[in-house]
Amino acid sequence: MSSKIKLITSTYLALLISATSLFASAQQLSTEQQAQMNSLKETALQSDLSYQLIESLTTEVGHRLMGSEGDKKSIVWAINKMKTLGFDKVWSEDVTGSYWLRGEAKARIVAPYPHDLVVLALGGSIATKKEGLTADVAHFETFADLKAAPDNSLNGKIAFVSYQMDRDIDGEGYGPAVGTRVSGAVVAAQKGASALVMRSVGTDNNRTAHTGVMRYKDQVKKIPAAALSNPDADLLVNQLKRGKAVSLYLHMTAKTDAEVVATSANVIGEFTGSEFPEEIVSLGAHLDSWDVGTGALDDGLGIGMVMAAAHHIGQLPERPKRTIRVILFAAEEVGLLGAKEYVKVHKNNMNSHVIGAEWDFGIGRIYKMTPGVGAQSLNAIRELAQYLAPLGVALSPENNAKGQSDMSALSDAGMPSIDFAPDGSNYFDYHHTENDTLDKVDPAALKVNTAIYTMYAYFAAQAMVDFRK
Amino acid sequence: MSSKIKLITSTYLALLISATSLFASAQQLSTEQQAQMNSLKETALQSDLSYQLIESLTTEVGHRLMGSEGDKKSIVWAINKMKTLGFDKVWSEDVTGSYWLRGEAKARIVAPYPHDLVVLALGGSIATKKEGLTADVAHFETFADLKAAPDNSLNGKIAFVSYQMDRDIDGEGYGPAVGTRVSGAVVAAQKGASALVMRSVGTDNNRTAHTGVMRYKDQVKKIPAAALSNPDADLLVNQLKRGKAVSLYLHMTAKTDAEVVATSANVIGEFTGSEFPEEIVSLGAHLDSWDVGTGALDDGLGIGMVMAAAHHIGQLPERPKRTIRVILFAAEEVGLLGAKEYVKVHKNNMNSHVIGAEWDFGIGRIYKMTPGVGAQSLNAIRELAQYLAPLGVALSPENNAKGQSDMSALSDAGMPSIDFAPDGSNYFDYHHTENDTLDKVDPAALKVNTAIYTMYAYFAAQAMVDFRK
Repeated sequence: MSSKIKLITSTYLALLISATSLFASAQQLSTEQQAQMNSLKETALQSDLSYQLIESLTTEVGHRLMGSEGDKKSIVWAINKMKTLGFDKVWSEDVTGSYWLRGEAKARIVAPYPHDLVVLALGGSIATKKEGLTADVAHFETFADLKAAPDNSLNGKIAFVSYQMDRDIDGEGYGPAVGTRVSGAVVAAQKGASALVMRSVGTDNNRTAHTGVMRYKDQVKKIPAAALSNPDADLLVNQLKRGKAVSLYLHMTAKTDAEVVATSANVIGEFTGSEFPEEIVSLGAHLDSWDVGTGALDDGLGIGMVMAAAHHIGQLPERPKRTIRVILFAAEEVGLLGAKEYVKVHKNNMNSHVIGAEWDFGIGRIYKMTPGVGAQSLNAIRELAQYLAPLGVALSPENNAKGQSDMSALSDAGMPSIDFAPDGSNYFDYHHTENDTLDKVDPAALKVNTAIYTMYAYFAAQAMVDFRK
Repeated sequence: MSSKIKLITSTYLALLISATSLFASAQQLSTEQQAQMNSLKETALQSDLSYQLIESLTTEVGHRLMGSEGDKKSIVWAINKMKTLGFDKVWSEDVTGSYWLRGEAKARIVAPYPHDLVVLALGGSIATKKEGLTADVAHFETFADLKAAPDNSLNGKIAFVSYQMDRDIDGEGYGPAVGTRVSGAVVAAQKGASALVMRSVGTDNNRTAHTGVMRYKDQVKKIPAAALSNPDADLLVNQLKRGKAVSLYLHMTAKTDAEVVATSANVIGEFTGSEFPEEIVSLGAHLDSWDVGTGALDDGLGIGMVMAAAHHIGQLPERPKRTIRVILFAAEEVGLLGAKEYVKVHKNNMNSHVIGAEWDFGIGRIYKMTPGVGAQSLNAIRELAQYLAPLGVALSPENNAKGQSDMSALSDAGMPSIDFAPDGSNYFDYHHTENDTLDKVDPAALKVNTAIYTMYAYFAAQAMVDFRK
């Protein structure tokens, strides 16, 4: 190749790169800031702080259902940790709700072939009567089939929905399965059923059932609702296949303490911006968990990541321009109570929440980021994506993120957001089960994900971009 | 290539094949018999009979611990199934022992950070006193460390051994781990401990603990013994790491009904040999199981395989020369009681048990066979290996098989044996846990393994070889 051709080729390539480049305008970060972000990345990739936080939370607090002892302890834990980690301001904001007590749940096939089954009450379910209930099982393969059952056709029966959720990288199997959990008891009661039993909303094959929130409806009789582990649901299906009546005994002592208003709290900590302290870049996770595992994944992972990310930025010689705020939401699992309260309390300055991201899904490494921002800021998002690309993060062509979990409430209130997505194929093996424990955390993925959240927060706090739609 | 050279080459190749052939003498099976075995192989590979048997056993009977209702039902089940499957003779032989009742087990870290732990009583353990016991934990990383503890150093303490078993293709991690389970309570008691708690002997990360047999010793105080799930053992270790005293509450209601002699039975069925009915080729599995899963793997797999294998052979137009006997042993889990009884009852004709194989390990496809036979019969074993090679079975160079599980007792009594080995890497994820259920059975591997057992039995029943050492 002649040097002339080389030159032309180089020029052409440069043009090509420029043309396809993500930077149509000047870069947001100065060379110095880029170096600082790179150094933050290295710090986060080396640090096991996020893991240590999860280890501490799960070992010293354990599970933390809204209103429980663990919930109260976790608030103290979070405040103390944030102070230890050097946050400029740390405070809590009360969140009230009711406290649901799981109690015990037992299920047993009485006939034709007796078997004890592994079962968990769905969150919010009432108890059975004291002596339990025994009834024949009416089997539905899908929630649609249950909905199609004629009125009164389930009188005196236990409705059983055996639908198996699909495994999917984005967790998309959850949606079609979770309807039965949330609304199945109402529909079954409307048909006359005395209880709802369902296959767990999960992809695992362990004899650990999945819990999660369910709802009752005014005017519709409340009936007990519970989930069987996948192997136990298989067994029940296999007995039903034989064409004989299958009789099930169900005993649950769950109760909602409607008399007592339980108080929990959003725990908030921030590193105050050096130039625009009123402009808030937020990092979210939820502090509560279900009461069966230790909430290491849901949402210990998020807690560890966002606290560590903010801490790393707080170790810089000076604060970034905007404030970085970590919000550990209360009572996500029982209906985003903390997020809703946050929006209520901060309604007059939601406008100053310049952007937010939560972590509440998945164990694996982040592979995708999806913004939900004003079009004028997409170039800045592309710049961030370039910094994150070496960590394996692809920028989604969509611009429709609505915020994960709690952040969806802030997003609804006008806050721009970014959703980071990992391979979630195995998440529903553990989600809302006794198996949500520390050993499932992947320390290597956690380091990378923490680095990504650190870089996102630093970028958003330094780039003087208006992300609003 | 000229036709002359071709001819020479062909001859040379033929000689070469002959020279390296495994057949130094005449083949055992005639061409017709080889065709018959090939047809049996195809039948077994197409059939889902072994799976259907496991499905039936686990769905209609469930678990079947020595002396339990399930144990009794399984005997009736096995006799009926064998009759339905056309066995020429079906009978049972009583086996007596004691009935151990699991009752309930609860464990809870009381301090410094309260947590409920998932725990199972070890098989044979006594109960705690009625109100349970609470004591500080003395932590040992290995059984050797516990053994090295000074006398009286554990007075008033709960000994905890946190050793984690290794994952291994041949299950070799089991040996180093299981010592604590079998003898840990005796050693801990000798040091003054009030209970033994150990990490489950398993490779999984589920909150399902592993049970299995433990032993007491005359003159040594009996103390309760239990296993924690792996994630719970991790949690306990993490609390201990903090250097504070860790107090554990343990409550167990297990008991042995020493008053009652429980009766179980070996269930035996055979297809009678057409020429040498007194010569027995045996296929073994054990009918009992632990009481926490449904015993689909341990040993439903073996039951399905050996019953189906014999049935397939029984469908041939005529019986093979030797008798094919399926022995479903009682009470393997609690100490090979059925196998020992079998040897006692049949001591005068152990000599006519020409060879035996059991299946009591692993879920995956068989990849290796190891004989334990007289040297004079190794050529016949090599011939069998040639028939099995297309199914992925390699012949081990060793000739030291001693029979799996129950068959080890028959092997000790002089019966030659073959051990078939699968990839057992994942077996201890499920072994002796609540997760030993039907969904863990791999139907494709099961078909291949059943074909292998069918071919082994047919070969041994037709090949007029003396396998004795």
